[in-house]
Amino acid sequence: MRMYDIIMKKRNGGELTEEEIRFFIEGYTKGEIPDYQVSSLMMAIFFQKMTDKETLYLTMAMAESGDKLDLSAIKGIKVDKHSTGGVGDKTSLALTPMVCACGVPVAKMSGRGLGHTGGTIDKLESFPGFSTGISNETFIKNVNNIGIAIMGQTADLAPADKKLYALRDVTATVDNMSLIASSIMSKKIAAGADAIVLDVKTGSGAFMKTEEDSFALAKEMVTIGRNAGRKMSAVISDMDQPLGRAVGNAIEVREAIYTLMGKGPEDFTELVYTLGTQMLILGGITSSEIEARNMLEKSVKSGKALDKLAAFVEAQGGDKSYVYEPEKLTLAPIVKIIEAPRDGFISHIDCDEIGICSLMLGGGRETKESDIDLTVGLYLDKKVGDEVKAGETLARVYASSEEKTGPVIERFLKAYHFSDEKVSANKLIRGII
Amino acid sequence: MRMYDIIMKKRNGGELTEEEIRFFIEGYTKGEIPDYQVSSLMMAIFFQKMTDKETLYLTMAMAESGDKLDLSAIKGIKVDKHSTGGVGDKTSLALTPMVCACGVPVAKMSGRGLGHTGGTIDKLESFPGFSTGISNETFIKNVNNIGIAIMGQTADLAPADKKLYALRDVTATVDNMSLIASSIMSKKIAAGADAIVLDVKTGSGAFMKTEEDSFALAKEMVTIGRNAGRKMSAVISDMDQPLGRAVGNAIEVREAIYTLMGKGPEDFTELVYTLGTQMLILGGITSSEIEARNMLEKSVKSGKALDKLAAFVEAQGGDKSYVYEPEKLTLAPIVKIIEAPRDGFISHIDCDEIGICSLMLGGGRETKESDIDLTVGLYLDKKVGDEVKAGETLARVYASSEEKTGPVIERFLKAYHFSDEKVSANKLIRGII
Repeated sequence: MRMYDIIMKKRNGGELTEEEIRFFIEGYTKGEIPDYQVSSLMMAIFFQKMTDKETLYLTMAMAESGDKLDLSAIKGIKVDKHSTGGVGDKTSLALTPMVCACGVPVAKMSGRGLGHTGGTIDKLESFPGFSTGISNETFIKNVNNIGIAIMGQTADLAPADKKLYALRDVTATVDNMSLIASSIMSKKIAAGADAIVLDVKTGSGAFMKTEEDSFALAKEMVTIGRNAGRKMSAVISDMDQPLGRAVGNAIEVREAIYTLMGKGPEDFTELVYTLGTQMLILGGITSSEIEARNMLEKSVKSGKALDKLAAFVEAQGGDKSYVYEPEKLTLAPIVKIIEAPRDGFISHIDCDEIGICSLMLGGGRETKESDIDLTVGLYLDKKVGDEVKAGETLARVYASSEEKTGPVIERFLKAYHFSDEKVSANKLIRGII
Repeated sequence: MRMYDIIMKKRNGGELTEEEIRFFIEGYTKGEIPDYQVSSLMMAIFFQKMTDKETLYLTMAMAESGDKLDLSAIKGIKVDKHSTGGVGDKTSLALTPMVCACGVPVAKMSGRGLGHTGGTIDKLESFPGFSTGISNETFIKNVNNIGIAIMGQTADLAPADKKLYALRDVTATVDNMSLIASSIMSKKIAAGADAIVLDVKTGSGAFMKTEEDSFALAKEMVTIGRNAGRKMSAVISDMDQPLGRAVGNAIEVREAIYTLMGKGPEDFTELVYTLGTQMLILGGITSSEIEARNMLEKSVKSGKALDKLAAFVEAQGGDKSYVYEPEKLTLAPIVKIIEAPRDGFISHIDCDEIGICSLMLGGGRETKESDIDLTVGLYLDKKVGDEVKAGETLARVYASSEEKTGPVIERFLKAYHFSDEKVSANKLIRGII
């Protein structure tokens, strides 16, 4: 078998076999097939697309290119959840204790990643003493005892995907549905879940800007997962403005805790319940959406979900008193109020720009080497549809120094748009697959 | 400017500017832009095509990526000729002395190349003592005095093309008209000609198998050349069977000399006159095709063309007596006759296969390092349309050893097809642009 023939076949519109896809992924992972052949294949795939079969073969070949997590020692159906990312997305922090309280075991391996804020692991480190550096044994034991554990990424999951993504990123071959979907799904499958709930975002702060593309990506991933024998569900949700009101790290943890206390922002709470419902159903806890929702709400009202978060934080070395007193989570000392420049209704927020404000404050990573400041962030008092008077508080900035606030406020104000007429925000939940 | 944006623009169907194309070619030649970005751009070009403007910019950027020959010290209009290659193509050997005898200066820089037989330089080395290792001064002086000189490739002509072609060759991005045309034309333009006559082959032994593709390639090259300010003409000719009857090196030189003596094979003679006519017209010798043809025929009848070859061979150290007594050119000692396996008419010859027979005998190079045997080759007594009786001589094989003849004869016989009905050969000249 020759890589040249594989490129030629795809270029000419042929369907690659499982054997051909495995040959290419294995050869590329080992460094036997050069980047320049793979990038020309990626461009050919961009133009010729891939069938469902090819996409499945690619996903599985990448999932099997490195280590795979073995979660068989954990009882019950392991349900994982993946978000395509956005601004203010602290969903895992509130969602996992809730579903765990309802009986779905949560066993996650997480990376830190790059972005406007830190990843779930970074955010959790807002709890003094908390660590994801636990052994495999402790990990399994904690999931079986408490129902939840999160581990730093120690295993080499889907290295082929990592290598391929880095190449696509510099050769203008990222934006193909099959390639995006197989990249995400290969990591999820390697991470060992039996079922996966996808949180696919849509809008100005999402990877997929249009609802059409978001649905297409969701369908593609659901198809891969089902063809790979996993139970799948996808929720398409709005990311045309930040989710909830907190953007940062410790400040997002606070908001997640408030949500577990039943006093979270309406949009965020709704998304968590919607995703949680799907997780309970895939986890085999119930087959009724109404019942699932009731269980989740009850886990909040009874304080069980909050207790799960506390037990989890404690089991991984963190101070659980912060879970019950979230105001103890440190925020940055400089607080600046951003005032509305005019009367009117907030008509639109350039969502990505709010994320960049968080990054400018030091709340995210631009490169893998960047340090992250967990205390900085933004709190949005007003969101799309809200009526404001000039001078009223639009948002608050939490910064480590005075100098940083000026450029952030300037950028922030450019991201907020106003109108004289009443405006309603986008529907939060766009669809469920 | 970033290579990424150039790839993205082309991928999305945009037209690249001259500046963008120069940026990419210069960066790639210097090694600043990596292979993997260039191969993805090549694949995007394969799908999105290039406009005439882009093709011209690419050609000129590649032509200017290295040395350019300065032929300004040579009097008259310098007319170059390029063949897209085929089996038995010894056209330059007969054509250049003829046009030179009619007043068109011939100043060629040639490489050795790979193929079924050697290149023009290899073939010329069949004359004992002949060398292309002459100085620039001798080269210019010889062209001005004798009218003809051929130099080995000392200059670094169009290195960007060399690098790009090698990459395309392993990434399934060779067969795009604009890329093929710009590759050929960049070298011709760097080689300094004022006018170029293209000999574009079509058929089973040609790079372009269909007449449609051959015309398209010819038009593409003519357009580039004219846009670059060169006088251009293209002849589309048959390569569905070998050209002439000789395939090899010394054996082809013999056939070229016979043609200069007026006793060459009909098809080969016709092609040489057709190309020569275009060269005389572009060279400004005459504007009448009839007159040009008469001049060429006269150069043969008068012996002037043969004398030019002799003077040229002598001026570059060769023994000119071989020009007048071509039987002195050494052929291999083992001569095997291939007999017709049946009665009938020759209906088709797999042209490429006859080339491979020559390669198997040692008459061509498989890699740059291969040694070439100038004495081996084939002589085709029968070609398409000829009637044969079983046992009659189809062809003769000139080999260096007995062992080599068996597999060659077997392969040769598979390449010849017979029918019971009378068949006519394809028209030789398919068109002139």
